[in-house]
Amino acid sequence: MSLFLQVVSVSEANDVVRHLAVPSRTEKVPLIDAFQRVLAQDVLADLDIPGFTRSVVDGYAVRAADTTGASDGIPSMLTFKGKVAMGTTTDHPIGPGECIYVPTGGILPEGADAMVMIENTELFGDDVLVKKPAAHGENVLFYNEDFSRGEVALEKGRRLSAQDMGVLAAVGCTEVPVTRMPRVGIISTGNELVPVEEIPHIGQVRDVNTYVVSSFVHEHGCIPVSYGIIKDNREMFRTTLLNATKECDAVLISGGSSKDDRDMAAAIIAEQGDVLIHGVAIAPGKPTIIGRCGTVPVIGLPGHPASAFIVLLIIGRHLLDGMTGQVDTGARTVRAKLSLNVPSAKGREDYIRVSCKDGIATPLFGKSGLLNTLVRSNGIVRVPAGSEGLETGEIVDVILW
Amino acid sequence: MSLFLQVVSVSEANDVVRHLAVPSRTEKVPLIDAFQRVLAQDVLADLDIPGFTRSVVDGYAVRAADTTGASDGIPSMLTFKGKVAMGTTTDHPIGPGECIYVPTGGILPEGADAMVMIENTELFGDDVLVKKPAAHGENVLFYNEDFSRGEVALEKGRRLSAQDMGVLAAVGCTEVPVTRMPRVGIISTGNELVPVEEIPHIGQVRDVNTYVVSSFVHEHGCIPVSYGIIKDNREMFRTTLLNATKECDAVLISGGSSKDDRDMAAAIIAEQGDVLIHGVAIAPGKPTIIGRCGTVPVIGLPGHPASAFIVLLIIGRHLLDGMTGQVDTGARTVRAKLSLNVPSAKGREDYIRVSCKDGIATPLFGKSGLLNTLVRSNGIVRVPAGSEGLETGEIVDVILW
Repeated sequence: MSLFLQVVSVSEANDVVRHLAVPSRTEKVPLIDAFQRVLAQDVLADLDIPGFTRSVVDGYAVRAADTTGASDGIPSMLTFKGKVAMGTTTDHPIGPGECIYVPTGGILPEGADAMVMIENTELFGDDVLVKKPAAHGENVLFYNEDFSRGEVALEKGRRLSAQDMGVLAAVGCTEVPVTRMPRVGIISTGNELVPVEEIPHIGQVRDVNTYVVSSFVHEHGCIPVSYGIIKDNREMFRTTLLNATKECDAVLISGGSSKDDRDMAAAIIAEQGDVLIHGVAIAPGKPTIIGRCGTVPVIGLPGHPASAFIVLLIIGRHLLDGMTGQVDTGARTVRAKLSLNVPSAKGREDYIRVSCKDGIATPLFGKSGLLNTLVRSNGIVRVPAGSEGLETGEIVDVILW
Repeated sequence: MSLFLQVVSVSEANDVVRHLAVPSRTEKVPLIDAFQRVLAQDVLADLDIPGFTRSVVDGYAVRAADTTGASDGIPSMLTFKGKVAMGTTTDHPIGPGECIYVPTGGILPEGADAMVMIENTELFGDDVLVKKPAAHGENVLFYNEDFSRGEVALEKGRRLSAQDMGVLAAVGCTEVPVTRMPRVGIISTGNELVPVEEIPHIGQVRDVNTYVVSSFVHEHGCIPVSYGIIKDNREMFRTTLLNATKECDAVLISGGSSKDDRDMAAAIIAEQGDVLIHGVAIAPGKPTIIGRCGTVPVIGLPGHPASAFIVLLIIGRHLLDGMTGQVDTGARTVRAKLSLNVPSAKGREDYIRVSCKDGIATPLFGKSGLLNTLVRSNGIVRVPAGSEGLETGEIVDVILW
């Protein structure tokens, strides 16, 4: 093993990671269980939606042209031709100068192209006074205006949101094609680690990474499978890695933080498969390992929890998304104005924690090993590898978490 | 029942909702199950963290002052005094001009106040050449720099993130005090509704709200309990509402969309408890009902799924957060520049769907009843009640979803 890491850029590392990720198989789940799963196929509208032109207010179906210029002072006077009850229709088409009462959600009579809200009308004997003009299509959802039969209603790769669930319900998708949730093995290595329930002696620290990595994996639509703490014991590490690669679709090794531990991890991955990358030009997170055992991708994260988290966010995420098929919409990346200068070393991507509020990103300085700045921040700002830093007032992209 | 709703402002509605919400009891859960639960109490650090001054790199522990001005050309020459293995310490304090090798995570010897990365050094017989100056504290985490014993490590009200889980692990919080997940009853009303697996006839629509509301409730840390579709049948509605208020901590009634249905909902809530608000100055979402049966809050959402979703996001969320104890950090609200004019009616809060990317918020016009614009957008922009609209180029707050 060489003393120095052969570092590659973050984008090279991510290309390798995306290439290693094996997309999960498709399975069908009942609609009610599909929330937050990743859609494996485009879902088409099975019908025209709405299936009829419907009102979105309580009021009168009219020909919009009959209400032109209507006002409180000079209302349009329309002949009241009856009511349509919910879920029923009428044979009576709306002729010029006529109107029919339709409740919210009700079917518009033929001839009508707009609804006047009841609040803007007055009954006057057999007539209705309309006090506000209605534009063509106002307060109406036209036949198939939302989705046309056969049209793609939701595209594959979406992590299903509450709104997406509504679309699936609307198009009658009772069995939803989603990607199977990948199993991700999690191994914490490091001689200094003790379980959370123990009081660490001097030189020891609690196993934080098992919890950070499991939660991150869960949050990204995968099933975390923890293999516990492995101390600096090659035989046990080898056995655990082999079990994990047999039982899981990917393995995340967190730590060890010392070079000896890292070398052990890299050596055993190399022995059982390939180490493709050892060292990424990212701060924090330089000693990251990317490899595989057979077809199972293995990422070696830094031992420091705060660094491990950044590597998960910037690199590991692409592995998880590649397996679940989730398409990155970039929705969690927002713009903000930097409130302080951020110096950086050229040649590596620096990730600076920020507290982002009201359009202002305030860098939280503090060492990359600290957990307390990680929980006081709500996102990170990337300082590109070619830059020596960012200046106060610059508009930056913040990746929110 | 009056023909017109007595509308109140959104902030009045939210004050009432927050007042109605009964905070959930506290329960303790094992750390591994605490992810995404809401912390019920402040969690204190049980120890000083780190418990010893530790290195965050592989390299040499030094007195920073000994490296002042060091460079490739004129390195500082320090006497190599041995190695510290992981988890062990040395009796030999660092004197002036001395250094000791320490691996990442290792304990710094007394007298040292910085680490020089191994990459910036060269072994030269019994000496180490240091080619880059180290500042005081560089590459080191000092004793209790992250958390001091007894300090609040995490504040109550946080929805536990992956990073938060790391902090809980670090401070040895194996049994986490969280709020019990409230049960939220969900009733879909409307004569026009058919179950998702059916093909709607003309005048009918599928029950979309059960899925949208359940998912939203789940996403906000509550347990959705669906009571199915209740058609326009007062007796059945009364029975279902009574069951739901008996079995749940809150009830969300979605629909009915017609005035008759709404009146039925309001009348039966009034009969079994109180209707506090019927009508909110919000678009979409005006016919919202806020009430209670005994101590159980009941919200009547609009029947249109797209409107129901906006009311959940702007009003319903405060009920759910009030019960779970989750503190709104405002982290999902970001600034962006509006790419188009947005007209609006004065006197009500309008919520406009936008697609927000690269700092630009593009309004997606389209009727508020459409699901397709809801899934093509990634957030909403509020047009305040006192405003007649927003102008192109204006900086607006986008609530991301």
